[in-house]
Amino acid sequence: MELNRLLKAGFGRRGFLSGSSLLLTGALLGTGEEPAAAAAAGRPAQIATPPQGEPQDKQSKQELLEDLVTANHILQDQGVVDGYGHVSVRNPANPNHFYISRWLAPDLVTPADIMELDFDCVPANGDNRRMYSERWIHAEIYRARPDVKSIVHTHAPTVVLMGTINEPLLPIYHMGGFIGSGLPTFDIRKSFGNTNMLISDAAKGKALAQSLGTYPAALMRGHGGVTVGNSIMHSVGRSVYLKINAEMHLQAGSRKIETLNAEEAHQAEVGNQEFPKDWDLWARKVKKS
Amino acid sequence: MELNRLLKAGFGRRGFLSGSSLLLTGALLGTGEEPAAAAAAGRPAQIATPPQGEPQDKQSKQELLEDLVTANHILQDQGVVDGYGHVSVRNPANPNHFYISRWLAPDLVTPADIMELDFDCVPANGDNRRMYSERWIHAEIYRARPDVKSIVHTHAPTVVLMGTINEPLLPIYHMGGFIGSGLPTFDIRKSFGNTNMLISDAAKGKALAQSLGTYPAALMRGHGGVTVGNSIMHSVGRSVYLKINAEMHLQAGSRKIETLNAEEAHQAEVGNQEFPKDWDLWARKVKKS
Amino acid sequence: MELNRLLKAGFGRRGFLSGSSLLLTGALLGTGEEPAAAAAAGRPAQIATPPQGEPQDKQSKQELLEDLVTANHILQDQGVVDGYGHVSVRNPANPNHFYISRWLAPDLVTPADIMELDFDCVPANGDNRRMYSERWIHAEIYRARPDVKSIVHTHAPTVVLMGTINEPLLPIYHMGGFIGSGLPTFDIRKSFGNTNMLISDAAKGKALAQSLGTYPAALMRGHGGVTVGNSIMHSVGRSVYLKINAEMHLQAGSRKIETLNAEEAHQAEVGNQEFPKDWDLWARKVKKS
Amino acid sequence: MELNRLLKAGFGRRGFLSGSSLLLTGALLGTGEEPAAAAAAGRPAQIATPPQGEPQDKQSKQELLEDLVTANHILQDQGVVDGYGHVSVRNPANPNHFYISRWLAPDLVTPADIMELDFDCVPANGDNRRMYSERWIHAEIYRARPDVKSIVHTHAPTVVLMGTINEPLLPIYHMGGFIGSGLPTFDIRKSFGNTNMLISDAAKGKALAQSLGTYPAALMRGHGGVTVGNSIMHSVGRSVYLKINAEMHLQAGSRKIETLNAEEAHQAEVGNQEFPKDWDLWARKVKKS
Repeated sequence: MELNRLLKAGFGRRGFLSGSSLLLTGALLGTGEEPAAAAAAGRPAQIATPPQGEPQDKQSKQELLEDLVTANHILQDQGVVDGYGHVSVRNPANPNHFYISRWLAPDLVTPADIMELDFDCVPANGDNRRMYSERWIHAEIYRARPDVKSIVHTHAPTVVLMGTINEPLLPIYHMGGFIGSGLPTFDIRKSFGNTNMLISDAAKGKALAQSLGTYPAALMRGHGGVTVGNSIMHSVGRSVYLKINAEMHLQAGSRKIETLNAEEAHQAEVGNQEFPKDWDLWARKVKKS
Repeated sequence: MELNRLLKAGFGRRGFLSGSSLLLTGALLGTGEEPAAAAAAGRPAQIATPPQGEPQDKQSKQELLEDLVTANHILQDQGVVDGYGHVSVRNPANPNHFYISRWLAPDLVTPADIMELDFDCVPANGDNRRMYSERWIHAEIYRARPDVKSIVHTHAPTVVLMGTINEPLLPIYHMGGFIGSGLPTFDIRKSFGNTNMLISDAAKGKALAQSLGTYPAALMRGHGGVTVGNSIMHSVGRSVYLKINAEMHLQAGSRKIETLNAEEAHQAEVGNQEFPKDWDLWARKVKKS
Repeated sequence: MELNRLLKAGFGRRGFLSGSSLLLTGALLGTGEEPAAAAAAGRPAQIATPPQGEPQDKQSKQELLEDLVTANHILQDQGVVDGYGHVSVRNPANPNHFYISRWLAPDLVTPADIMELDFDCVPANGDNRRMYSERWIHAEIYRARPDVKSIVHTHAPTVVLMGTINEPLLPIYHMGGFIGSGLPTFDIRKSFGNTNMLISDAAKGKALAQSLGTYPAALMRGHGGVTVGNSIMHSVGRSVYLKINAEMHLQAGSRKIETLNAEEAHQAEVGNQEFPKDWDLWARKVKKS
Repeated sequence: MELNRLLKAGFGRRGFLSGSSLLLTGALLGTGEEPAAAAAAGRPAQIATPPQGEPQDKQSKQELLEDLVTANHILQDQGVVDGYGHVSVRNPANPNHFYISRWLAPDLVTPADIMELDFDCVPANGDNRRMYSERWIHAEIYRARPDVKSIVHTHAPTVVLMGTINEPLLPIYHMGGFIGSGLPTFDIRKSFGNTNMLISDAAKGKALAQSLGTYPAALMRGHGGVTVGNSIMHSVGRSVYLKINAEMHLQAGSRKIETLNAEEAHQAEVGNQEFPKDWDLWARKVKKS
């Protein structure tokens, strides 16, 4: 999938924005970027919303899986995942299913490696390839959060570290607006005692989903974190800026940081939309290499 | 534009140095590099100043826009911008206009993406492509500062962080001489209350320009910063060394740093000229990749 | 050796797992990844164990040496070694011998550079090429630890630094599970007074091996560290995660870290197996470049 | 110049080791690497010392200049220099002259850019190209230190920072052995008051050389540092490990580091020779890119 097609595909990547389309529309009309002529004329800009429906689904699926593969590569390139971590997307044609790679380091994923699972992690079509042991992160969050269309499990070291120190991660700049007034930290030991730290069954997935609640992201002690979003682009963008925000927090050392307040963070999050400018940049980078 | 042409173009890149040419000439004659024969003979070196005038403008415009594209790529490569941030240049043939990319991540910019705007951000020639929402940073600084020929809006994380902690950023080495006795920090909340942090209209642009005053750069709380200069090369060079200086400051932790004093900083800034050696290096790097 | 062959080779890379095969089997059945169909059916997965025996040795040796070369390149790429540091593997056909490169920076190693040494560091087959002065690290650990099949001598700066400060390195996330309740630090000065810090003879190798004891890794003051494992993949994986864990520890500054407790670390270590997902990722990366 | 030739050239790179050949020989015989057969037989190894004399000079000069170009590229690749900083080598056929690039960022240097200067910085052969303003660093150190064959002026940010904080840089591991019991810091303000920080004339070069004294390296407040050596390989290697040692020092924050004592540092320095293993690694890296 080349950049041209990426650009042409436009909103297709953001897909079925049911729950969040009001938010996004508000962002585009209110605080986002505007076509020049409209802006010059003092009129608010209109962004055409692509039709979302059944007839498109066949083409959408192929593009969606290509975007999922691209997301896997972006996450490696941006330092969000290493051999571990993963990204998934809900099936728009069957919201009780999601797509995720078979057991494989994200950077090695190709379209042929994508599997379709239900929320009990039973694969569609009798696919019996080896799965991620932590697929339950995805299944149980999709089950608990109908608004969530895509999930990233991050292994970025600075995010890992933020989950182990007793300091709140707050938004240091507008790109971290989604962090709001702070994120929950899931400590697996509180519910399950001593474990190997992995979300390796449904019960642990449910507990993580409960800790996440309605937040856009959660840290996981001794493990990493999750980010969710309205699209692949959205969960990926949040995972990158969660990492950058964590890096800045740690780099500040013992210095006091004047973070965004709750209202600033909220407005910044609206302004960020789902990180479309980043996606195009990040996608081209992994396609070139 | 290949290196050979870059080198051949020579001072063309630095363009219309009206306001600062005395400064630059002083630098070259006094403290800068000298042709060998002149130095050996004990005579100050003479650097030919290329003619600056109307007849050249047609060719200059194409070269200027190519340099602006190169600058976009350099800023990504040097870690000054990511998907966001931007760089602009004043139109030498019409000082009330400036050139800047349409809405696009800097690393993706090509010559065809450059737009020409006036200080109300109305595009020339009916160009109605989507614009950066923060184009007002550029418009209002050019309006307030006739001496400024180019502007960079930086998103370097260490610069962002320096704008959120209550410590002055001072020049740690000669390459940061332009930092002088410190830079202003613009806090959008002081004048506009809670916002999405973006400089998304003329009023906010004016407030930022007022905070910048006559300084070569300003930090922006929860957002990033701006650097200005006599040329693209100059604003870009300052943005890179602002970043490196911020990194060093943070890396020092709680250690006391013996920074340059005001006079040392001034003399170092003169000696640095507009970073021509860096430009050639940075430009080749992005052209090779 | 291409990725396809790597994947096809499968468990061949992990070789002769005699001592640790129970552990690995437990990991695969209990906490690891499971083939989809088996998991869906509620049955524990069966991973075919490749036959380990004499007839395979001829082919195994070539593959083993290719993996050893790949490991050399991975260690450079992952920042574990620079011009120094090395990796070795025990000869499965003659457990009193091991393979290691001749005197050469790891990234430059090719199959032709591999030598075979006994535990007195006498080369097989009259090979008289220049050897690493610190070959004794390998010889004496193999002699003392029959369970060890591969050894990495790391020069990662963060690991070096952890060996010089008086703070215990503990597992910050599950990938560092092997660190358990902490690692020994070998201080050559305690037994040998002032030296050039190198393990340059048998006595020093023996002292290091004694300090290592039954641990999976040891730090070396003013020098670096060693990791050992059941396979090349295992010692390499541990060396990478030792480095990442050390980086996180240092990045935390004076903040208190809630590390894994001993039982969590043990279970995580079992769950990590020998880092097969990382190996495939890391190996492709160095083969592409 | 390809790797094969580099390897074939062998000791030629280290050239005229007059002053330090005893030291080097001691290192090779005593603590360094040994050919296998000799070691196995218990005999000390003999390293053939290449003839050093007039007849070789013609070929040596071309190789020497190629090595100087390679060194320029290595210094950029290893983060020792950016657009600034430089490396020079004494002319073995005329010890009162040295080779250094004309005014150019190190990474852009080619053999045609090398100039030959005397200690008054008068170029040989009427070469009148623009020179580095800080060529006096090199001229005055060569004049004061007949034992020095090559000099690097480093701009590594961590080295810059170490020259501005009031903490001694000490050897944290054996690769930093040359740091011994600490290095001098040159503060230009002490002798010259407020300047642009540059070593831009003979007087400042002499003052820096006096501060350096008999040390292998010096820091320069608000500027960078210098390393000297018996060969290009030696000054380059020291500049890289000075940088790594500075990084470790800063990364330790307020933690106490157990550094090498003076005798350990001395022995380690002897053991490091002139970093031949690093050179081959670093040189191949820049030749590949």
